[in-house]
Amino acid sequence: MLYLIGLGLYDEKDISIRGLEILRECDEIYAEFYTNRWCGNLKNLGLKKARVLIRKDIEENPGENVLKNCKGKKVALLVPGDPMIATTHIDLVLRAEKLGVSVEIVHSSSVCSAISETGLQAYKFGKTASIAFPEKDYFPESFYNVLKENLELCLHTLMLLDVKSEENRFMSVNQAIEILLEIEDKRGDGVFTEKTRCVGCARLGSRRRVIKEGSAHDLLNCDFGLPPHCLVVPGELHFMEEEALVRFRIF
Amino acid sequence: MLYLIGLGLYDEKDISIRGLEILRECDEIYAEFYTNRWCGNLKNLGLKKARVLIRKDIEENPGENVLKNCKGKKVALLVPGDPMIATTHIDLVLRAEKLGVSVEIVHSSSVCSAISETGLQAYKFGKTASIAFPEKDYFPESFYNVLKENLELCLHTLMLLDVKSEENRFMSVNQAIEILLEIEDKRGDGVFTEKTRCVGCARLGSRRRVIKEGSAHDLLNCDFGLPPHCLVVPGELHFMEEEALVRFRIF
Repeated sequence: MLYLIGLGLYDEKDISIRGLEILRECDEIYAEFYTNRWCGNLKNLGLKKARVLIRKDIEENPGENVLKNCKGKKVALLVPGDPMIATTHIDLVLRAEKLGVSVEIVHSSSVCSAISETGLQAYKFGKTASIAFPEKDYFPESFYNVLKENLELCLHTLMLLDVKSEENRFMSVNQAIEILLEIEDKRGDGVFTEKTRCVGCARLGSRRRVIKEGSAHDLLNCDFGLPPHCLVVPGELHFMEEEALVRFRIF
Repeated sequence: MLYLIGLGLYDEKDISIRGLEILRECDEIYAEFYTNRWCGNLKNLGLKKARVLIRKDIEENPGENVLKNCKGKKVALLVPGDPMIATTHIDLVLRAEKLGVSVEIVHSSSVCSAISETGLQAYKFGKTASIAFPEKDYFPESFYNVLKENLELCLHTLMLLDVKSEENRFMSVNQAIEILLEIEDKRGDGVFTEKTRCVGCARLGSRRRVIKEGSAHDLLNCDFGLPPHCLVVPGELHFMEEEALVRFRIF
């Protein structure tokens, strides 16, 4: 039996009671922190034995690492946020079931719904975009197209920011804005300029959460502190959303 | 101080440890179950004193009901799912802050991210639609337009189904499909026919969760059991999504 258990948004207090109860019955416990940054400490969950996995343990040969122990045992994999948001875990579930291992998913809080703490209505978000760190020979731009399509439909866009935990690199709101402005410079579609209204968020779900609203130009120089960060570009605003956003205005 | 605390997807085991800890420090505890169906029992959280509110307690005059007790006290409002998904709670937060009441939000699991348990990728959902019960003089169709727009962009559509808890009416997957087919009959845009591929879900986040995939015609006669239900119409599928969905096929 394999349990994929969500750790939730921020630290060890965001796991559900359901998740914690199952964890206490498990024979083996793994955790991964490469799909998202997690700010807790597994010891605070009373877990001395949890083994932290790296990407290749799950993606390259999980049958030899994670899954080989699941038959006849209860094995948990702890995942930041809500576990199935990461595509790699859909793949893991399919591989597990092919090996005859049953899987149970324990959900937890996720930026996908927590973003409504900004006051922007969950029903008015379009497709979610992911901004990747540009590489030497690779400067992805698909998130710019997603933003463009959403804005044409007057919808808000949640942008999830790249995580390279093995290099301890987590994209900041500032870096995301720089990347978007660079693409705008090149393409000139008027989708994301220095005047574009943005909402930058950091550490959602914690008491240290920061939400700031302003133009791309103004947010570019704001310090959002430690990751995880995310960025929203609002579409058309309902008056109640406008009233909610103004609370976070920076100037 | 007002704490809006998410109860999460299914029952009393879905609240986070953070939520439970705060609840134990609160002087007064309210709960509402009209924005969504919740299948737990507050007594199992050790709450004998919680008062269940109806819609008008919060929407018509919260200053006289919920908010008047928040100054100098710790007051919790328990909400099914993740609290800010319901627009009415964005309004409540704004009203509270105008009265000088601080608000803290405690997130929990939500259908918005849990829907990825179907194997459909969270990044490929467009705008969420809500299907309302038709009334005598009012047959809303906006969700049909949302579906149409999402399908044109090859995106999946999550449809949240109406809840009228004061009348103990919770829309089923079957009713949602009937409503969509009725609008299709009238408009004939070819957006949702008997052949449209659908994914029906019930009780996500619980061990009694059901996910079934098939044509609208085939799902129409499936029994999904007790609410809450939701419906997904997939857009274009990645091969891994296809592989995941086939596991839930009904025929």
